[in-house]
Amino acid sequence: MAETLDFESWTCPLPLRDYPRVVLGHGGGGKLSEEIVEHLFVPAFGNPTLNALGDASLVELPPGHVAMTTDSFVVRPLFFPGGSIGELAVNGTVNDLAMAGAVPQFLTAGFIIEEGLEMATLGAIVQRMAAAAKRADVQIVAGDTKVVERGHGDGLYINTSGVGVVPAGVARIGPDRARPGDKVIVSGTIGDHGIAVMSVREGLEFETVIESDCAPLGTLAQSIVDNTGRVHVLRDPTRGGLAATLNEVARQSKVSIIVEDRQVPVKPQVQAACELMGLDPWHVANEGKLVAIVAPEAADEVLAWLRAHELGRDAAIIGEVRADRAGMVATRTAIGATRVVPLPLGELLPRIC
Amino acid sequence: MAETLDFESWTCPLPLRDYPRVVLGHGGGGKLSEEIVEHLFVPAFGNPTLNALGDASLVELPPGHVAMTTDSFVVRPLFFPGGSIGELAVNGTVNDLAMAGAVPQFLTAGFIIEEGLEMATLGAIVQRMAAAAKRADVQIVAGDTKVVERGHGDGLYINTSGVGVVPAGVARIGPDRARPGDKVIVSGTIGDHGIAVMSVREGLEFETVIESDCAPLGTLAQSIVDNTGRVHVLRDPTRGGLAATLNEVARQSKVSIIVEDRQVPVKPQVQAACELMGLDPWHVANEGKLVAIVAPEAADEVLAWLRAHELGRDAAIIGEVRADRAGMVATRTAIGATRVVPLPLGELLPRIC
Repeated sequence: MAETLDFESWTCPLPLRDYPRVVLGHGGGGKLSEEIVEHLFVPAFGNPTLNALGDASLVELPPGHVAMTTDSFVVRPLFFPGGSIGELAVNGTVNDLAMAGAVPQFLTAGFIIEEGLEMATLGAIVQRMAAAAKRADVQIVAGDTKVVERGHGDGLYINTSGVGVVPAGVARIGPDRARPGDKVIVSGTIGDHGIAVMSVREGLEFETVIESDCAPLGTLAQSIVDNTGRVHVLRDPTRGGLAATLNEVARQSKVSIIVEDRQVPVKPQVQAACELMGLDPWHVANEGKLVAIVAPEAADEVLAWLRAHELGRDAAIIGEVRADRAGMVATRTAIGATRVVPLPLGELLPRIC
Repeated sequence: MAETLDFESWTCPLPLRDYPRVVLGHGGGGKLSEEIVEHLFVPAFGNPTLNALGDASLVELPPGHVAMTTDSFVVRPLFFPGGSIGELAVNGTVNDLAMAGAVPQFLTAGFIIEEGLEMATLGAIVQRMAAAAKRADVQIVAGDTKVVERGHGDGLYINTSGVGVVPAGVARIGPDRARPGDKVIVSGTIGDHGIAVMSVREGLEFETVIESDCAPLGTLAQSIVDNTGRVHVLRDPTRGGLAATLNEVARQSKVSIIVEDRQVPVKPQVQAACELMGLDPWHVANEGKLVAIVAPEAADEVLAWLRAHELGRDAAIIGEVRADRAGMVATRTAIGATRVVPLPLGELLPRIC
């Protein structure tokens, strides 16, 4: 069902029509490879750099420190409410760059396709990637396509890697920079992405469709980082959710983090779905939210900046950083009880991104 | 058999010993993810940039034009004579950067692991990647691990993406720059990699083991590119082999290329294996060879430079570029007959890189 959501705007160009499904030869480095690159990838991602089609692409970077990151995407199903593996692949890497304080610039895209994938599915996903890249103001400048035999993949895996630039003068941020007294801010409701994917995968229906929050966080992050050094940590709570992100920061910064449970924004339908599936929204992946840990005197200002951005309207101060019990994350419930939030062991929700 | 070649030097570190095989949780963003990163990836790739473990890594690039590339590796089996998916993943991306005239600098590594892969196999491959990175003088500065369920992958797929810098003043090279009169040079024997992989996959035994030529081409390429503009094209003939590479250049440069068949270096055992398997060495992948297309007056000098490098000892001038019949590649046999070498259609040797 979800697989047929967005094909209306993509029609298979002429030389590819003989192949309604991807065959091994499309990854073989010969004529079929050339056709899929020239008639599918280049028209979608087209920019002068990619069009040159060399072994590597030459780009110009503005001055500043260079940030690099990589992420592979194996989400199942390929389409879900609010997005697809295409938007996820672009935004996931854009967001990792943004969390380093960088302005995302250029992405590469590596496709591992299972033989038999419908060409129209690939076309629709590539088109969504191109739209996401445009929205995030990045260019996809290099790509690679490999095809594996039927039964040795799962439709499509995408790797994106990216380069961004931290403008000169921007104060360094990092997961080891949280300081006692700092305030913890989340930019919006948690758990939306993971529940959107799980509900379609499990065939659950709710009164309102829960949509993924998949979005590029570049401009939201840039709205709060500056040269004052008051923003200490930026992270996007993806796999492992808010629980994993806060635990990593607590451990790397050698501090504890105490969160007021009722301050953490969760959509009622996400809360309800979590209860139905036996999940804790703290553990569920987000793809369009950030956690900022900031100096206490900057908290209200940063909160206001976040709320002024369309992706940060539901931002909230949810907790604070303490010096004692380094490495611990705890949450305080409405009645004042405190419980430790451990780092999840492993995979609560496989193939969520 | 080949799978047990190189495990002597890798022993599973303590926290990973409870998991002799990779489980879904190792890609889940929780404690198991943390353990595999801290005890397997960081000790192997360890450098200050990767050790910071942020969402993105900050690097410093020397001045010059920035080259970017990406490649996914799906070779089967994971180990073969002369290498493994690990060396291939590093050298493949290093070589794509080198073919743009860039000095390779930084790589990212994305792992898509099938649940059940032996931890010792992963450890050995990661260690070989680290050794290959050291040999190629590049740092692996960012990584990502995803685990897919048993039956949805094939042991291990690796994506590497890379960034390099073309020193200021180096003349631009590209597949569209071949000019009539140019000489075509190959840096050594062709077909070694593909035949090494195919022979182990098909269980063929020859008198001498055919080894992959997998090697980093950075210093070899840098030994011939300079600011004189006499090197017009550099390509590494990987998937699709020499036939695909020359066809791409002929098409993009709008020229024809005529090759003297007997000048093309092929090892006798590779030739014999090709005849046995019904393959043409022109179509077989290489992973440590380059094709240089250079101004005629520079050909002898470039040939001498290549031969002075340990990876270019068997370099040979194999043909020349012509103005007529743009887009065509042809070879002239020993008896003077000429045959057209078409771009291969699709996949002659699937999963070779």
